Amino acid sequence: MSLTTAQQAFFQDALPFWKKLTPPQQEELLAASTYHTYRRGELIHRGSADCAGLLLIESGQVRSYLLADSGREITLFHLLERDLCLFSASCILRNIQFEVYLQAEKDTTAILIPPQLYQKLMNESLPVSDYTTQLMASSFTDVMWVMEQVLFMSLDQRLALFLLQQSQLEGSNRLHLTHEEIAKHLGSAREVISRMLKYFQGEGLIALSRGGVTLLNLTGLEELSRPKHPA
Amino acid sequence: MSLTTAQQAFFQDALPFWKKLTPPQQEELLAASTYHTYRRGELIHRGSADCAGLLLIESGQVRSYLLADSGREITLFHLLERDLCLFSASCILRNIQFEVYLQAEKDTTAILIPPQLYQKLMNESLPVSDYTTQLMASSFTDVMWVMEQVLFMSLDQRLALFLLQQSQLEGSNRLHLTHEEIAKHLGSAREVISRMLKYFQGEGLIALSRGGVTLLNLTGLEELSRPKHPA
Repeated sequence: MSLTTAQQAFFQDALPFWKKLTPPQQEELLAASTYHTYRRGELIHRGSADCAGLLLIESGQVRSYLLADSGREITLFHLLERDLCLFSASCILRNIQFEVYLQAEKDTTAILIPPQLYQKLMNESLPVSDYTTQLMASSFTDVMWVMEQVLFMSLDQRLALFLLQQSQLEGSNRLHLTHEEIAKHLGSAREVISRMLKYFQGEGLIALSRGGVTLLNLTGLEELSRPKHPA
Repeated sequence: MSLTTAQQAFFQDALPFWKKLTPPQQEELLAASTYHTYRRGELIHRGSADCAGLLLIESGQVRSYLLADSGREITLFHLLERDLCLFSASCILRNIQFEVYLQAEKDTTAILIPPQLYQKLMNESLPVSDYTTQLMASSFTDVMWVMEQVLFMSLDQRLALFLLQQSQLEGSNRLHLTHEEIAKHLGSAREVISRMLKYFQGEGLIALSRGGVTLLNLTGLEELSRPKHPA
């Protein structure tokens, strides 16, 4: 769907390099970009099989994750309002050769810039090329943070940190997440997560209920999530 | 040390964007870049504490790795002849906020482009900006490959793969590596690696000796390193 006047206004305001484009580039971008809605749970991007274009989130929330052949997943980062994502246009970055998936975590609306057009802008415009480098550096930093957690933190630390972050993201201490969903965020197995959640419950940190987790002791979870330095 | 004529010739030939620079940019780059030698084992870059500049390897081999507060390490990638590395100039990429270390694995010679000059070229020259994006995408791909291994492969698979890769890198089936060094490459603990190496030896895959490992059964190691798909 092409953009309405209100969507065009949002697009121009949210796109960091908009003002640095020439009028013909701006016109081309407005004419070619499209508006999309995704239902909660919908897959937006499936690794290198897709190349829909550069994604600019208008509203909602998107999860980016890795998927192993075995079906195991791990969350890399979340995209919120006004976030841009390069991975849905990874075909234009010839050196990106890994498979990232994007899924709507809430009902989401977004604007897509076609990959060929974005590539043309990157080749024409230094501000677009520079912005692309900075956007990639930022995703790289997010992913390295996940990697450091996986490598250097124990699973109880990571689970405590995840529950705290999720509660911030949702603005609530009550999280509607199954054990299976938590395992997929953390790249772990459901049984391992269930066992650890029960342990957390026994320590009075959380309460478990059907399809959900309630955080009871935030200070305790924060303490648990902190790295333990060797003496 | 400023560049000799032979080093200048190598520099111009190895730098992918050299021919796309203007003559004044080329002159400035030649005048400002410096030649360095590093002994085997020498630290070249220590996370965000350093920002020596963009590194172009002339000869030798460099290891890039993550270092945890606990002292644990994991190898991210290796730099060989003609490879360029952005991480030794991470201060110019304001969104790169993780700590990568670089260490010479063999006696190494390299040319350093000062970070301020590289930043200026990125801001002036579309080919340099575009090259930077592609170089970062390529490192990103290397790191994601390590991440997928850590997340989705068992340690015996990863150890078999590491021994095979190392033997290719060295051009020999005889590897001069201690158990401690192997653990640092794989982000694991020495005791865990020692146990698994002894198991590999028991299976006839390798032979262990003082300070080294000899690969005996390459086919067996390759088989072990392959991902096991669920039926």
